[in-house]
This record gives sequence, structure tokens and C-alpha cells, in this order.
Amino acid sequence: MASKRPHVVIVGAGFGGIEAAKALRRAPVEVTVIDRVNHHCFQPLLYQVATAALSPADVAWPIRHILRGQSNATVLMAEVTGVDTAGKRVLLREADAVTYDYLIIATGVTHSYFGHDDWAEAAPGLKRIEDATRIRSRILLAFERAEITRHEAERRRLLTFVIIGGGATGVEMAGAIAEIARQTLAKDFRRIDPRSSRIVLLEAGPRVMPALPPRLSDYAARALTRLGVEILTSRRVVGCDRRGVDLEAGRIDAGTIIWAAGIVASPAGRWLGAEQDRAGRVIVAPDLSVPGKPDVFVIGDTAAAYDDEGKPLPGVATTAKQMGRYVGKLIGARLAGRTLPPFRYRHPGDFAAIGRRHAIARIGPITMTGFLAWAVWSVAHIYFLIGLRYRFIVAFTWLWDYITFQRGARLITEPADRD
Amino acid sequence: MASKRPHVVIVGAGFGGIEAAKALRRAPVEVTVIDRVNHHCFQPLLYQVATAALSPADVAWPIRHILRGQSNATVLMAEVTGVDTAGKRVLLREADAVTYDYLIIATGVTHSYFGHDDWAEAAPGLKRIEDATRIRSRILLAFERAEITRHEAERRRLLTFVIIGGGATGVEMAGAIAEIARQTLAKDFRRIDPRSSRIVLLEAGPRVMPALPPRLSDYAARALTRLGVEILTSRRVVGCDRRGVDLEAGRIDAGTIIWAAGIVASPAGRWLGAEQDRAGRVIVAPDLSVPGKPDVFVIGDTAAAYDDEGKPLPGVATTAKQMGRYVGKLIGARLAGRTLPPFRYRHPGDFAAIGRRHAIARIGPITMTGFLAWAVWSVAHIYFLIGLRYRFIVAFTWLWDYITFQRGARLITEPADRD
Repeated sequence: MASKRPHVVIVGAGFGGIEAAKALRRAPVEVTVIDRVNHHCFQPLLYQVATAALSPADVAWPIRHILRGQSNATVLMAEVTGVDTAGKRVLLREADAVTYDYLIIATGVTHSYFGHDDWAEAAPGLKRIEDATRIRSRILLAFERAEITRHEAERRRLLTFVIIGGGATGVEMAGAIAEIARQTLAKDFRRIDPRSSRIVLLEAGPRVMPALPPRLSDYAARALTRLGVEILTSRRVVGCDRRGVDLEAGRIDAGTIIWAAGIVASPAGRWLGAEQDRAGRVIVAPDLSVPGKPDVFVIGDTAAAYDDEGKPLPGVATTAKQMGRYVGKLIGARLAGRTLPPFRYRHPGDFAAIGRRHAIARIGPITMTGFLAWAVWSVAHIYFLIGLRYRFIVAFTWLWDYITFQRGARLITEPADRD
Repeated sequence: MASKRPHVVIVGAGFGGIEAAKALRRAPVEVTVIDRVNHHCFQPLLYQVATAALSPADVAWPIRHILRGQSNATVLMAEVTGVDTAGKRVLLREADAVTYDYLIIATGVTHSYFGHDDWAEAAPGLKRIEDATRIRSRILLAFERAEITRHEAERRRLLTFVIIGGGATGVEMAGAIAEIARQTLAKDFRRIDPRSSRIVLLEAGPRVMPALPPRLSDYAARALTRLGVEILTSRRVVGCDRRGVDLEAGRIDAGTIIWAAGIVASPAGRWLGAEQDRAGRVIVAPDLSVPGKPDVFVIGDTAAAYDDEGKPLPGVATTAKQMGRYVGKLIGARLAGRTLPPFRYRHPGDFAAIGRRHAIARIGPITMTGFLAWAVWSVAHIYFLIGLRYRFIVAFTWLWDYITFQRGARLITEPADRD
């Protein structure tokens, strides 16, 4: 911190923050990455932790280990409480404020319950490792309690799983829960038949995977139905508690409810006093800086950015990574007295896995379904895991589970949640 | 439960309970295994979870999965609150009482703070998966906070780790923490040097590994010292709080304190109204039944049993397994109108791993030290893991970590503990 080199502070070590730090590897700067947790989470596979296929440590790696070889990078595990843009300082809960010359905000999103924050306890979403282990505990506990109860209605309720939101996360969760019930647990109980479970996927719009062409939505719906998922489209949730979900048309009693619907940006907009869109994302300039604050950048899910047609960029890992890389390079260029053209997003494709042998994919003009799409999905995800070790462990685990229909991480480890 | 076959209820799915259930596989009985958690924990490797080498799911497997192929076995996840021996019923918190014809208590032990239960928060012990993830979080958080603090004394405190108790668990924890500090984390920090950490192993008696011959104690002490562990023998702990440990001779300020000293049996003795020894273990008859209650057995760490020389049997996995197998067979024999000779314990050996390339071992009259002992230790532990999958994952993880000096599960996942 005593260095004379410009200090780049990156808040958030998700896909955007890590890429920005790496892009500054050879720049004449000091980089400090701040995150409130010690690990970078590979969110695209978080649903596999929530459904007991992978362990938390398979998809989460220590931030400081990722950056250990980068001598100009320091990692601080601390919670940011605000930004003093006048004094160019980031305020921390655990320590003294950190001053910056350049600031990159990459703090992501959290769940939005559309003004019903009281639904959060009943219907957890899936963004962090803790969310995943909590959902895993709830799913597995539901079966355990169903085995114990002597009341038929309560048993039916416990064996009902409702997933709210028919995007990629909802589709992947629904498929995985269906497989747990129909295959993994099929022979493990004596008093209940897990195969009789009801798995309901609720979507407010007219079709699942609304961001993709109708052909892929249709395929996803058919594949889910074959796995035993009940898809209810054009249904709006009007209430939610620990015992079920209220729709306009009536109530579904359920033991486990998972939120895969709305998201809202982290409070970075407030910290910066910057203009935000409806979801709380900061509206950024073409170079991803905050208008009027050329040394402050917002990237990833926290930024409201648009493509050439004016459509918002998708809130996925690649968007964040491209933005991180761009801002890292831009700062390097500025320090060298150069400039860069505005940020341009390239969309590599869309994926969603449906159980253990189906997927849908769109790569440019090409759409794919079925086992081929699943194979492409698997290879792509393993490729993007950090480090050979994790690639190997995850590949082995998937192969093993594929052959045995098992899941290796069926742990209930959240005693506090045993309500 | 409606069956006419005798009902054997097993409380606790540790090594003893699982073996007892398996031994009843072909007996004309119905078996119900009750545990308050859903998993069987392979405790001998729990210290590797606490020190970020393995994931919880690598050493904990769903009980009902272990017994899925045994059609006469039912698994209930429920908490036992007592036993009504007159009515032959096991009382559960979550459900109606379960009646038994034979009862096997295998509920293990928990930590004993010698009357100082207020030390528990400051110095957690290592018995359950939650203990391991909690200790892992504390160890990793200590380094994170040391990196942030600007106060030298506080930094030294945070980088001091005290392990209380010089038995196998204490020795294994101390060695593993030393390796984390000296090797795994050596290059991951910028403001602190993890290699400067102080790791203190406290033992009340005159030498570590007191149950083994002095030659092995000496070797363990030398190997630990080479790893950078400070061993203080004949030191009694007189106080303990979140900021340090008080000895008669003075205080050691510490950021992380781990309890590997005393244990006390679970409250089974109270449930049964049976005679107990000082550690709360139930004094059992030669056939491991409770005197005066021939249909109630107590096995594993919960039982006070003695060898031919009158020495108490060691509280290790093998003891529990042998007892479980014996009682299972005994019940089968009784139902067939036969009887069995009294339980006899065979001691297979003692092991303790010291870091990643040393161990001490005693197998019958043979003692071993060094890399050879470590190799035997590794093979034995992998052999006893349940299922090929876990054997493979653990073997791969160890090999990888051995080559790279890394640890794959460096996750801090206990936000509640962020005091």
C-alpha cells in the first residue's frame, strides 16, 4: 500500500473481479482484491452442490490461491460497507479504509423477492456456497422426515418440491431433484417411495428457458416431463411460506421451495451514488466506467450494459469475465497513455443441463439438444473449472455418478435449519 | 414395525452401530438404526477435514445408503431423548416412540472439559462433521485476519495455534496445521509470512502419545519438532477463552485453540439407569449387555469394557466395530437357541500420522516409524473407507496434495462464527 504505483482496488472476486485482477498481471500497478468470503465460487455448478452431486470444495477455490503467483496482487477477506468516492476510499467493516486510484466494483447480484423479502426464509435462492448446502440439507431432510411421519398428508407435502422460476437455474435444479427422487434415493427408504415425489417447476411466463428459441424451450419441457417434473407455466406466485406456495389459482403444499426467479444487484449503486436501472444495476458508460467518475468501473451482474440492439447483456459468467478483462486492459492502456475502443460483448452461447444425459445448447446460430448438448455442456464446464485437480475430481465424480446413478455428497450439515 | 420378527433397535450409526446392523443381515429380525444425523462419519480422517485436506463428503456417507441393500434394516434420522426400559421403548424427539425386543446403544462420546464447559466455545473438539468445518474455518480465518490487522501483537496472537492434548488426534492436528502454515499457505499472503506461525501442542502428561511405547513418543515428538511444532509436556491447562490459554506457568495468547484432551460418554448411562464409570461409560457384562438387562447392549466408546489384564479397551474404531459385530452375532445366536463365549477384544494396532510423510505405528509386537509407517497408515485408512468411490477420491486427493503440497478444501463456510 506504501507503493508509488497506482493502486487498483477490486471489490468482489467472482468471475469479473478475478479476470480484472489477472488482466492487470503485467500492468505497473498494485492490485487489491477484496471479498467478504475467502473463496471464488464457480456458480454455474452450484446447483450440483445443492443437489448433492458435488462437494462445496469442488466448485469453490481460495481467492488467494488463484492469485498466489501474481506478485502485484493482494487479497483481503473483508466486508465492504461503502465507498467514499470523494476521498477515493473503500470502507471496510473489519479494517481501516483502503484508498484507491482505480476502483472496480464486481459485487454481483442477490435474490429479489419482488418486494416480499419475507419469502426469503421459505424459498432460498442459489448464489453462494452456504445457499447450496442449505438447499441440499432441506431436500435431503424432506425425505428423512417423510420417512418418519405417520400422517399421509404431511408425507405428501414433504415429498413435494417446488422450484420457482423456469430459467437455466430452475430447469437444472428441477431436473436434478427429479433424478434424486426417481433414481438416487429409489432404494434407500423403507416406508416411503421417493419415486412418488412431486417436483413442480413454476414459470410466470408462457414457457421455460424464455431467453432461448421456442424449439429449445419445448425440448427442455419435454425432457423435464420425462424425468417426472410437472411444469406449470403462466403461473404467478402470490405467497410463500415454509409449508407451501400460493398461486393465483390455488395453493401447493410443499416441503421444499427453491427460488430461481428474480435477482437484484448488490448495493454498489448506492455506494457510488450512481444512476441505477430497475434491478439496481449501475448504468455504465461505454467503457464500463461510472458516468462522471472515470476511475470507477462497474462490471458483471452489477452493471447495466446493453448490446448493439439495446438488449441488456445476459447475467452470466462470460459477460462478467469479458468485462473484467476489458477493464483490466483499459486501466493498463490508460497508464500507458493509450485508450481502448468501447467494450463490446461477444455472446459465446447458452446452456442448460437437464438431468444426467440431456441438455439444451445454443452456440451462435447452432442449437443442440439431447446427449450431444449434454456432452458439450460437460466438456465446457470442466474446461472452465480452475486447475487440473478440480477438473479431474469433477470429471471422475460425474463419470462415476453417471454409471452408478449415485451422488457422493448427501450430507445434511445445517442443524440450525432443523425447524 | 408391524412385523412379527423380533425388533432390534440400534441407536447410533458410528462404527459400532453400523457393524451391529450388518452382522444382523441374515438374522430373522427387523433392524432399525436411529441416528440424529443422516451420515456415518469416518472419524479417523476427520482431522483431515478440519485441516482442509478432504471435504466433509469424502469421510461421511449417508447411513441409509450404507444399508440400502439390507432389506431387514430401516434407518430413521431422529434424536433419541431417552429409553423406557420397562416398556422397552426408545423415545424420540421427532416422532412416536419405537418399541424394541433388543436394544443396542452405540452413541459414542463427546468432549469433556473437566467441569469447565465454558471452555467449549473457545476450544472446540473434533467429533462430528460440524466440528471439523468449524475448526477449518477458524484456522483459515486466523490467517485471513492476521493479513488484515495492523497491530503486531494481534497478528502474533492470530498466528498462534494451540492444540490441547497430545494423543493421536492432537498429534495429527498439530502436524497438519504446521504443514498448512509452513507449506500450503507459504506463498499465499502478502503482508504476513504464514511460516512464522507458532503451533503449540500441550500435553498434561510427560510425553505425547502416552498410550504407546516411549520410543514411538520420542519419534513423534522429533517429527513434530522438525515440522515446527512446539511441544510442551507436563503442562496443565487452567483456563481457556477465545483469546488464549492459561497454564499454571503463564498464558499463551492464541487465535485458534483446539481441544483434543478429554472425552465423556454420551448420556446412555442415564437413559438406562445403569452403573457408569467416571467418564460416564456404562459398565457392561462380559457379553456387553447391561447387567440385569440381558436384552440391552452397550458398545463402542459408550461401554466401559476391559481386556484380560484389566486395562480399559481403547476408544477407537476397531473396538467399536468388534463389539458391534459380536453383539449382532450374539443376538442371532440367542434367537437360534445358541450362546456365544464372552466378548474378547483383539487389538490390531495403533497409528498416528504426522504430516504428509511420517507416522508412527504399532502392530502387535512390531513398531514402525517414518515413511514406511505413513505408507501403512495410508493404505489401512483407504482400505477401511466405505466404497470404491471414496477410496479412489481420497487416494487421488492425497497423491495430488503430496505432490503439490496443496489442500483442496480451503473453504471458510461458517459465517456465524465470524465473531
